[in-house]
Amino acid sequence: MQQIVDFILELDKLKAVTRKTRPLGLDRFENSAEHSWQIAMLASSLAHHAAEPVDVQRVVAMLLVHDIGEIDTGDTLVYVEGGWDDRKAAEQAAVRRIFGLLPADQAAHYLALWQEFDDAATPEARFAHAVDRAMPALLNLANDGQSWRENGISHARVVQRIGPPIREGCPALWAYMEERLEAARAAGWFTSP
Amino acid sequence: MQQIVDFILELDKLKAVTRKTRPLGLDRFENSAEHSWQIAMLASSLAHHAAEPVDVQRVVAMLLVHDIGEIDTGDTLVYVEGGWDDRKAAEQAAVRRIFGLLPADQAAHYLALWQEFDDAATPEARFAHAVDRAMPALLNLANDGQSWRENGISHARVVQRIGPPIREGCPALWAYMEERLEAARAAGWFTSP
Repeated sequence: MQQIVDFILELDKLKAVTRKTRPLGLDRFENSAEHSWQIAMLASSLAHHAAEPVDVQRVVAMLLVHDIGEIDTGDTLVYVEGGWDDRKAAEQAAVRRIFGLLPADQAAHYLALWQEFDDAATPEARFAHAVDRAMPALLNLANDGQSWRENGISHARVVQRIGPPIREGCPALWAYMEERLEAARAAGWFTSP
Repeated sequence: MQQIVDFILELDKLKAVTRKTRPLGLDRFENSAEHSWQIAMLASSLAHHAAEPVDVQRVVAMLLVHDIGEIDTGDTLVYVEGGWDDRKAAEQAAVRRIFGLLPADQAAHYLALWQEFDDAATPEARFAHAVDRAMPALLNLANDGQSWRENGISHARVVQRIGPPIREGCPALWAYMEERLEAARAAGWFTSP
């Protein structure tokens, strides 16, 4: 029991990991814990639109753990160029440490979920990636492009970075978003590429 | 697709619903969105200690939606006396409104999960209640009794209010906590009853 309590108290630190998106109507940045909750809800609401049939409960389980490594590494804006291999290696070391607070069989279970997400080789993992990439963009589309504006991101960079994973995991969602991203471009929400 | 997007943007408001517990090491109050993520992780880590065998994925699904009504009602400290029937009715009206943003079959699915939690009549719902009641107390035990101190809560009130549901849903967790609550009482973290 003490191992489980130590683990859940360590997870508390994800509430202090801030992202670049602001919740609608709030001045602060969102954190990775509340983001993890929201994408679990998006996945469970959107699963019937996944590119292939998915076990939605495994998608939810993956999304709940996929950002836990950020407790040690922090969050990085998806539009940053380069350095992703090093970041991934650091996150993997982090989840080994954090899941390692639990008994070995539980640690292995969570690590396998984390790795499945990272490998993006199953229908569940591809759908999970689509959901994870879409959520901040959906918030931006409802928020005058807040994090794109604040970080000087171009329309081309957004489409290049989030288009392929969303199209691959959830084509209906990408069709919806592509049109709205184009309208946002026309409205001048992006910097030039 | 627009209905799903409207729903997930409405859920964003749960990030603005504050509770009385502060994340460890932070000055701010935690919000109900990040709390929902943390208890989903606690449930999935603790399920083998549930009083009865449970479908852990349904427990997680229940916990992810159980606080959504607070978008309209706000959170109420569990130790407040009276008024719980009115609060529950208001929360039920809220989830009908919010889940009602979705197509009818999805709304019914989420409403059934919310109602199952509220009824506390299945092993899954009882375990979910145990986890939900335990989490803020586990944070308090790691935080010098922060929300108990700030709200003048007695040891007797804590044991009376969270003991029965935790003991019923997860007796091993209550055994662990009862001992530590007694030590916290001895250390003077509580007001007199």
